[in-house]
Amino acid sequence: MRVSLLYSGGKDSSLCALLLEPFFEVELVTCTFGLTEAWRTAQRAAIMLGFAHRVVTLPRDILDECVSMLLDDGFPHNAIKFVHFKAVEHLIKNGAKLVADGTRLNDRVPKLTYAELQSLEYKYGSCIIRPLMGYSKPSVMALVRRYFEIEENESDMIDKADYETEIRHVIRERYGTEKVRELFPHHTQSRVILRKR
Amino acid sequence: MRVSLLYSGGKDSSLCALLLEPFFEVELVTCTFGLTEAWRTAQRAAIMLGFAHRVVTLPRDILDECVSMLLDDGFPHNAIKFVHFKAVEHLIKNGAKLVADGTRLNDRVPKLTYAELQSLEYKYGSCIIRPLMGYSKPSVMALVRRYFEIEENESDMIDKADYETEIRHVIRERYGTEKVRELFPHHTQSRVILRKR
Repeated sequence: MRVSLLYSGGKDSSLCALLLEPFFEVELVTCTFGLTEAWRTAQRAAIMLGFAHRVVTLPRDILDECVSMLLDDGFPHNAIKFVHFKAVEHLIKNGAKLVADGTRLNDRVPKLTYAELQSLEYKYGSCIIRPLMGYSKPSVMALVRRYFEIEENESDMIDKADYETEIRHVIRERYGTEKVRELFPHHTQSRVILRKR
Repeated sequence: MRVSLLYSGGKDSSLCALLLEPFFEVELVTCTFGLTEAWRTAQRAAIMLGFAHRVVTLPRDILDECVSMLLDDGFPHNAIKFVHFKAVEHLIKNGAKLVADGTRLNDRVPKLTYAELQSLEYKYGSCIIRPLMGYSKPSVMALVRRYFEIEENESDMIDKADYETEIRHVIRERYGTEKVRELFPHHTQSRVILRKR
């Protein structure tokens, strides 16, 4: 069974790739709006981990709606959640029978609600797998320490290919650096730099 | 890392064992109140799958409280949930640093709430892993078909070592077969009979 795993190069989606590897034919997929080359970071990480990797360009109107939500809300939660839903839907609409993501049970990052997940599964007959939903942070971190070397830093300092990177980029381009600071809370991010065998 | 997986011999807990196998030292644990030898079914399945297996006898007062809840409620949901919580807590109190169970995201079977899970993790410093929480029924079934041959039947017809088996037994002993029918809704259960390699 082939699974398309949404992949940022961060520790959570990288751990997902490892958890799926023994049971599925895993393809790592990084989404982009074509604004930056942040996807190259994810591609390098995917190659380093030993997985197939594909870049998918999402329609620009998804970004426009996301930016409009972000400016209305004044914080990024709903806007990033919206992009994530659209990314999953895009993969499914384009034929993916199994889509996976790296959301954890107690993730601060926006994740699909149970209703959204069910509606996508029922509507398109595909399955969505979230291997880390059964893991809380301490057990994720134990596995991450066992299998990876990671780099952690402030989210604007780290080279990573999550949705936030391109959304920050477009806000910076259109409204300046100060607006990015205003809209995005400080938080640390991680990326994987080595797989321990 | 050693993980103690609560194990009934059914398809869900067997699939969990497989999902954990590449990453942990997995020990399958079947709980009993010492009333029946239903645990032998789980032990046979565990050996067939190729895992270490241990039988843990839970204190009888847990069963008494469970039966009392069951009679008060008139349905088994809360009573089985209570036993499951106590089983997880028992393993943790007796030194298990990692405990796993086979609950699915959309399981009808009682599962730990997020608050219960967090309180157990914080109180005792252990971790609880639920590998199937990120899988909905169709993807679980696809993996089950790939890796197992299973037998399915009505829950009172199937040889299995879940909590329900011994609770049914004690209700039958104390109140007769009619009371078992009254308290437990009809539903099908499964057990694993072969691992496909």
